[in-house]
Amino acid sequence: MKIARFSHGDTIAFGIVDEEEDELVVLKADPMFAGYEPTGARVPLAEARLLAPVIPRSKVVAVGKNYREHAEEMGGEAPAEPLLFLKPNTSVIGPGDAIVLPRQSEQVEHEGELAVVIGRIAKNIADADAAGVIFGYTIANDVTARDLQRRDGQWTRAKGFDTFCPLGPVIDTELDLDGGTIETIVDGERRQHGRLADMVHSIPAIVAYASSVFTLLPGDVILTGTPAGVGPLVDGDTVEVTVSGLGTLSNPVRAAG
Amino acid sequence: MKIARFSHGDTIAFGIVDEEEDELVVLKADPMFAGYEPTGARVPLAEARLLAPVIPRSKVVAVGKNYREHAEEMGGEAPAEPLLFLKPNTSVIGPGDAIVLPRQSEQVEHEGELAVVIGRIAKNIADADAAGVIFGYTIANDVTARDLQRRDGQWTRAKGFDTFCPLGPVIDTELDLDGGTIETIVDGERRQHGRLADMVHSIPAIVAYASSVFTLLPGDVILTGTPAGVGPLVDGDTVEVTVSGLGTLSNPVRAAG
Repeated sequence: MKIARFSHGDTIAFGIVDEEEDELVVLKADPMFAGYEPTGARVPLAEARLLAPVIPRSKVVAVGKNYREHAEEMGGEAPAEPLLFLKPNTSVIGPGDAIVLPRQSEQVEHEGELAVVIGRIAKNIADADAAGVIFGYTIANDVTARDLQRRDGQWTRAKGFDTFCPLGPVIDTELDLDGGTIETIVDGERRQHGRLADMVHSIPAIVAYASSVFTLLPGDVILTGTPAGVGPLVDGDTVEVTVSGLGTLSNPVRAAG
Repeated sequence: MKIARFSHGDTIAFGIVDEEEDELVVLKADPMFAGYEPTGARVPLAEARLLAPVIPRSKVVAVGKNYREHAEEMGGEAPAEPLLFLKPNTSVIGPGDAIVLPRQSEQVEHEGELAVVIGRIAKNIADADAAGVIFGYTIANDVTARDLQRRDGQWTRAKGFDTFCPLGPVIDTELDLDGGTIETIVDGERRQHGRLADMVHSIPAIVAYASSVFTLLPGDVILTGTPAGVGPLVDGDTVEVTVSGLGTLSNPVRAAG
């Protein structure tokens, strides 16, 4: 099932995507907390503006260097344990929202990623129990100011600017990851392409590991790393991240005003 | 004015500390959002259990190496710009709550710090405007698993464990920082002592800098760095961080169960 958060007229709501009818089945409340009770209304997808499908109340956790070829292009090896960092919820934007290039950086880059949306409180869970705390999957772009990442050492500033965490377009609660692929296209040019199976640390391992550090809360989002091919974003670009079965997260890029 | 969040019987509320009467003037709602409307009730301080005075909905931002002597004891220099990192809100605990030593670390250390509580939305503000977005000040302990900090490179795990961000005991909305001191005492032994005036980057500079990266939201907390003297915490310790005029944040330390 695919869940969207959207605005339509004056309303912001959650809905189930009816892919046959190209409509949204409007829900009474956030299904993560309130189940799937429809209001009875339907909204044509073409009339809805999709929003980030989740705004984390607590954490966006991300994993560095989780595809071997990307670790190599960054000049290192994939770490033996997941390398965690945080992005603030103020960096989250939705599909179609602009990634704004901050004045402080000369080199902002895309990192297309599969994202896990946590649905239950989780602490110190085993890999085998990870599936039970996952609400669904969405797409993320772990936008990174590469020059500031190198200069600061800590990645917080480089990855934490406002607009540096596009999420969407929907959450799929039943995504089949087998054989899944991810790709990032900038203005029609394919920059990144990877197989989800090539993650160094698997999704269950990442969720379990994160839960050994932090209590994971419903609405937390975990970015699972980016494949090789990261590259620059400049004013006027459109960056599209596609995960097989999940759709495409598309965002324009513009310089700070 | 000193603001506490507290539990008393079945109630959790905010209150103004009446230091003459040793009582809490109970407020109708969170004064950060709703002003200072009293309910009419008063609670003796001795009967109240103080809680973390704020739970950030968005960010705990922290600044590394912001006292020269601490930067030196960490084997480096104070950076030319504030070095930012994030602690998740799941790491926040209140006065008297236990700091739990995670099994993953052999070396957990205290870092007593003055913390700034943001009261207004702030983006790209000037140093001169920082005072206008500060709600008040509290005390923090930036608890750090030093071995994991070294091993990971990124500080997120080392500083992000549950219980690793004690905050409290109160928020002072009118704290006079002039001549202010901070000290950390572990089981009666003074480990850290510093003058707030010795910060490398001033509080207005830190707030302005953070706002040049992230939109700061009401309830965000900024930890302003720790003076020299960081050292180990072990099971059974009690760690007390005192800021002149603000009181003492005291937390027991225990091993993971």
